[in-house]
Amino acid sequence: MDNFVLHTPTKVLFGEGQIAHLNSVIPKQARVLILYGGGSIKRNGVMDQVQNALKGYTLFEFGGIEPNPTYETLMKAVELVRQEKIDFLLAVGGGSVLDGTKFIAAAALYTQEPWHIIETTGGDITQAIPLGSVLTLPATGSEMNAGGVISRKSTGDKQHFFSPSVIPQFAILDPVTTYTLPQRQIANGVVDAFIHTMEQYLTYPVDAKVQDRFAEGLLLTLIEEGPRALAEPENYAIRANIMWSATMALNGLIGAGVPQDWATHMLGHEITAMHGLDHAQTLAIVLPSVMNAKREQKRAKLLQYAERIWNLREGSEDSRIDAAIAATRHFFEQMGMPTHLSDYGLDGSSIPALIEKLKQHGMTALGEHGDITLQDSQRILEAAR
Amino acid sequence: MDNFVLHTPTKVLFGEGQIAHLNSVIPKQARVLILYGGGSIKRNGVMDQVQNALKGYTLFEFGGIEPNPTYETLMKAVELVRQEKIDFLLAVGGGSVLDGTKFIAAAALYTQEPWHIIETTGGDITQAIPLGSVLTLPATGSEMNAGGVISRKSTGDKQHFFSPSVIPQFAILDPVTTYTLPQRQIANGVVDAFIHTMEQYLTYPVDAKVQDRFAEGLLLTLIEEGPRALAEPENYAIRANIMWSATMALNGLIGAGVPQDWATHMLGHEITAMHGLDHAQTLAIVLPSVMNAKREQKRAKLLQYAERIWNLREGSEDSRIDAAIAATRHFFEQMGMPTHLSDYGLDGSSIPALIEKLKQHGMTALGEHGDITLQDSQRILEAAR
Repeated sequence: MDNFVLHTPTKVLFGEGQIAHLNSVIPKQARVLILYGGGSIKRNGVMDQVQNALKGYTLFEFGGIEPNPTYETLMKAVELVRQEKIDFLLAVGGGSVLDGTKFIAAAALYTQEPWHIIETTGGDITQAIPLGSVLTLPATGSEMNAGGVISRKSTGDKQHFFSPSVIPQFAILDPVTTYTLPQRQIANGVVDAFIHTMEQYLTYPVDAKVQDRFAEGLLLTLIEEGPRALAEPENYAIRANIMWSATMALNGLIGAGVPQDWATHMLGHEITAMHGLDHAQTLAIVLPSVMNAKREQKRAKLLQYAERIWNLREGSEDSRIDAAIAATRHFFEQMGMPTHLSDYGLDGSSIPALIEKLKQHGMTALGEHGDITLQDSQRILEAAR
Repeated sequence: MDNFVLHTPTKVLFGEGQIAHLNSVIPKQARVLILYGGGSIKRNGVMDQVQNALKGYTLFEFGGIEPNPTYETLMKAVELVRQEKIDFLLAVGGGSVLDGTKFIAAAALYTQEPWHIIETTGGDITQAIPLGSVLTLPATGSEMNAGGVISRKSTGDKQHFFSPSVIPQFAILDPVTTYTLPQRQIANGVVDAFIHTMEQYLTYPVDAKVQDRFAEGLLLTLIEEGPRALAEPENYAIRANIMWSATMALNGLIGAGVPQDWATHMLGHEITAMHGLDHAQTLAIVLPSVMNAKREQKRAKLLQYAERIWNLREGSEDSRIDAAIAATRHFFEQMGMPTHLSDYGLDGSSIPALIEKLKQHGMTALGEHGDITLQDSQRILEAAR
């Protein structure tokens, strides 16, 4: 096991009805900005629950944070925060609203031009406006971690940043809020959480037995519950298991003390930035191709994954690995998510441009060994056509 | 899954050499009291590492906190804290030192007679002196939770208390510090962590798949690594896995949103208080007897435990349950810990007195269903003779 520091201070309030306890986690005198996305929270009753819970508070609203939140939109919120002297940010939505809110929290108190936050990957953030969330889309784990991903329309960039200053103070997770999500969003969430887990699991063994077992527990849960969530949208237990899996998949726990990959995410980000595919769709395209391309470096973990997740114990090592990759692909397809570029109308002609973007972003040595060059990335994308 | 609130704000610094970073987690101007037990930390170099890391700090020492820390001893530390205006407590040791330090942290700022903290199970603690720990004995999980257990020599009581105010700010976990532990202490730690997990796992199903898989991951790790830890005391990876398992077993994570039992602990506490057996020894005696006595109420989870932990899939339900209980008993015995009262020279004649103590402490309806009466507890102890 590698050395690690793990800090998960976010207070989690989990379960049906927990939104009513918002007033126990936001200071009474706070000037609260409620941030949200396309407005579904106004149609499904979540905003009503939030406002009821915060009666007596000074409330402001900022809607319209888009999937893959843009710098351009977020800077409008930064202006509002500064103007109205907002001192608490409440994100109500999914990972995009949360990531956007984290950026706003840091940018509002940042003395330089805020895009510099992204250019420095958040490294020089020293303070942020306190924030919390009511999560309505289980997927990214952003509700309990220090990271965010921001896009810039004007340049076609999609990049991440991290800072302990933007870890949410609390996360309210009520599985009922997910009942009205479109199937595609649930599929996105399940696949995203699954691949977050894989990025921290499918590397090489460091004898970290707890982390491995926990990661496997999340993978098994997502495989069992994902397809059921599509079939039974109002089954509380299923939604609860998915919601809790997604939070646990990226709050630092399973990644503490183990190598991490993240090549799939870096390649996926470029596809979203250039072509607008959903984040999870890009991951479902890239991951099987990475698994295959890196089968030597990941051999031991691929075999463990094959055995413990898919019960593959017979045949040669390579046949078990092939079967595990096929099973992974089949799981994504079961979630309604095809795994080739061509399934999304892309013929691969943009691959050179995608590689050029990777290069611009300094992504020239990806993966847990830093051995995925731009040529390797190109081969991975070619194999995913 | 049941509703829950989970808050794990303790910052974990895990791995060899992390003690050197103590000065990053204790304020520079703090007046720090270092608390410890029998003094092994002065012989094995841990105290030297702590003092080196805290050069320039104003340091005080309080040693002699005993296993099953007593109110009588701890109140001497409370006096020292008040007298020297200590404003940070650093526990260096195992669960007893940690539990004692938590009590001291609350008692020093408590306006009433501090035993009242125990009488009210910590419910009216409103503040505590900040604390952190350097853990040298993986076992109790106290380094990352809100609880403690305190004994009172004068009355023969051993009782727990809880308060968010006493959650440690940080925990430094360096597996190397455990190399010099006596075998008996390692065995105690492994069995204690195993039974903490069982108290939160072996109840009845509430469709909490993540919690179940995480608990099973800890049980499997402890079963694999426990006996190896006895055989290879200086194997870093084994000690690291045990140390991390023990923390995860009782930091709230696996118990969030699921029923909990704790009958084994309540009965065990009385045996320790009356006869001085090690905490884990009492648990190893009581748990198999509880498993057998409550096999109807715990049937579904017992079968899941039999299958997923011991790979028992053949035969009648009751034969699988019998085999799982036998395997559990065998695991404890493998750790050098016998599972009957008679193995510790107790003939069972004190059982009525133990039941009387349980009654005095209000433990008349134990277990996840609250259906273990004093008569049931008596039968459980009789069966453990």
